[in-house]
Amino acid sequence: MKEKGEIYNFCAGPAVLPAEVMEKVKEELRSYGGCGMSVMEISHRSAAFKEILCEAKSRLKELMSIPDDYSILFLQGGASLQFPMVPMNFGKGAYCITGRWAKKAFEAAELQGRGEAFSGSADRNFEYIPKIDPADLPKDAKFLHICDNNTLYGTKFFAPPEMGLPLVSDMSSCILSAPCEVEKYSLIYAGAQKNIGPAGLCVVIIKNSFLESAEDEGLPLMLRYRTYAEHDSLYNTPPTFAVYVANLVFAWLEKKGGLKVMEEINREKAKLLYDCIGNSALYLNKVSPRDRSIMNVPFRLRRRDLEPVFLAEAEKAGLMNLKGHWSIGGIRASIYNAMPIEGVKKLVNFMQQFEGENL
Amino acid sequence: MKEKGEIYNFCAGPAVLPAEVMEKVKEELRSYGGCGMSVMEISHRSAAFKEILCEAKSRLKELMSIPDDYSILFLQGGASLQFPMVPMNFGKGAYCITGRWAKKAFEAAELQGRGEAFSGSADRNFEYIPKIDPADLPKDAKFLHICDNNTLYGTKFFAPPEMGLPLVSDMSSCILSAPCEVEKYSLIYAGAQKNIGPAGLCVVIIKNSFLESAEDEGLPLMLRYRTYAEHDSLYNTPPTFAVYVANLVFAWLEKKGGLKVMEEINREKAKLLYDCIGNSALYLNKVSPRDRSIMNVPFRLRRRDLEPVFLAEAEKAGLMNLKGHWSIGGIRASIYNAMPIEGVKKLVNFMQQFEGENL
Repeated sequence: MKEKGEIYNFCAGPAVLPAEVMEKVKEELRSYGGCGMSVMEISHRSAAFKEILCEAKSRLKELMSIPDDYSILFLQGGASLQFPMVPMNFGKGAYCITGRWAKKAFEAAELQGRGEAFSGSADRNFEYIPKIDPADLPKDAKFLHICDNNTLYGTKFFAPPEMGLPLVSDMSSCILSAPCEVEKYSLIYAGAQKNIGPAGLCVVIIKNSFLESAEDEGLPLMLRYRTYAEHDSLYNTPPTFAVYVANLVFAWLEKKGGLKVMEEINREKAKLLYDCIGNSALYLNKVSPRDRSIMNVPFRLRRRDLEPVFLAEAEKAGLMNLKGHWSIGGIRASIYNAMPIEGVKKLVNFMQQFEGENL
Repeated sequence: MKEKGEIYNFCAGPAVLPAEVMEKVKEELRSYGGCGMSVMEISHRSAAFKEILCEAKSRLKELMSIPDDYSILFLQGGASLQFPMVPMNFGKGAYCITGRWAKKAFEAAELQGRGEAFSGSADRNFEYIPKIDPADLPKDAKFLHICDNNTLYGTKFFAPPEMGLPLVSDMSSCILSAPCEVEKYSLIYAGAQKNIGPAGLCVVIIKNSFLESAEDEGLPLMLRYRTYAEHDSLYNTPPTFAVYVANLVFAWLEKKGGLKVMEEINREKAKLLYDCIGNSALYLNKVSPRDRSIMNVPFRLRRRDLEPVFLAEAEKAGLMNLKGHWSIGGIRASIYNAMPIEGVKKLVNFMQQFEGENL
């Protein structure tokens, strides 16, 4: 049996969590703050949990410099439930199709007759981030939807498109990876299971004026953003344990020095990998360099027959979960905040060695 | 600081979990099955997680004797999201109003113009389970909805009403407390945070023929039961950690001897408390004896001014979270599966002593 520490987990999500956070979770698993009960066993309306919720919100606000006129909400259902909720609450959206998840979001809107797709990057297999031409935007769109970081294809919007329309973004796989100009967005949502905490929690950051514009009268209460805002995410029982872990992750990020520091580390990690790929005759990443994600680095082997060998040997070396998304195959290294630079260095060494031995 | 073991947690939910389960969770928190990763850090599509999901389903099927023509689904959003989902998928329902949660379910249906309430127990402050007169049922109802166990008021349907209509039941606070005639229900749902596991997971048990009758064509995929059934609850990322804990709870129940044994223990626990209340001049529970829940035992003190004193002293004695629901006050002892009989005995002793000292 392998012991933790020998392995590095490159899973795209649910993904590796910071070792210090996991140690803390383990330490107080049976008795939160010495209360004799696990955080899983206390009421969401208890003073102890309300403090966790409050801390999580204020830490996230501080970390991301979220302006005062925004609300932070904790929901369930992942980004996948956000896909229909956004158009249900805000009407027709213009969807920029830059990959699988952007398309899923669009399809959920389309099913409601509330989505129009435009100027995506499907023409070049999602290997770049398109320039958005304001003339392409449907006149009656109430918002522009983007998927900030495309987990499968390894692309990223490094500047939020400013089109004079409220901007809605799926940041599941890049939230907290770098400073973010929150004020340029009207709604940000992110499934927790990549850079925040365990699966089952979805964080929503929403501009209050946008929230107030929601036409949600006939909607089920559980599908209105307003319900979560009015009840401080306690209308019903939230996923309390996931919120608790998220709060610890936020505290860890604070301790690391915040998002500017994280961005530097993440850029360094990504550069190691992209340089390795760029200098190689075996590995291939076709994403436009300026659009390359610093969270997900997908690549192919020029000799595709070697990909299963690569994956099997990587695993033997303790480099886990490098398989690309099942829908497109290949290799993908997800290097979220919790992936230490040592893991990336070990991967790069392995890649170079593998290339030497196989090419 | 109190150490675990000295205290007993009577919280209505999120509630106490079995000590053995929590110890196991702690033990393998950093390395699930020796894989070097936490169960929180592995993909929901990994072989390891699929095994957990599969085990959880087969254990639940065995424990509850779920017939083969039923599907077991793992959702998010708690029972609160089931409230609107049921009528969205199945049309108009007849709602028997036996308490707060039954009413919430009805209101979610009413908002869609798909709910009709009838023959509830509001007339006597929800202190009994009404006999349902088939003549009262709206002719165009597609299902009958009940809340099997009423957490706030401490009542329980001990026999599922058979009205020739598909029966839908919220079993959040009684699932797994005793054997259940699943074949009499078309859909059972239960938020996990009482008798199953951590908050953020909702278990749905649905008869396949009922599932197939869903008129869900225009619905968002995430709000169709069919989506979860067709993708074995893996259409999107499920709350993996909560499913893992649930699986351990199911294994614990197996080891305890199954639901018949649990029912005996639960009846014994409940009897201790109801007898204590019945023999007392201070404590009062007005629920019809035949309808008394074996999971939630609410009571009042005839001298209401003593209730805060009772709660404060109970807490000092290590008897935690006995406060009644905020909307009705009083005292409530939730004695779910994970509450050992020792906890109930300690509470009864405390109650007798408190009565002796204060009356």
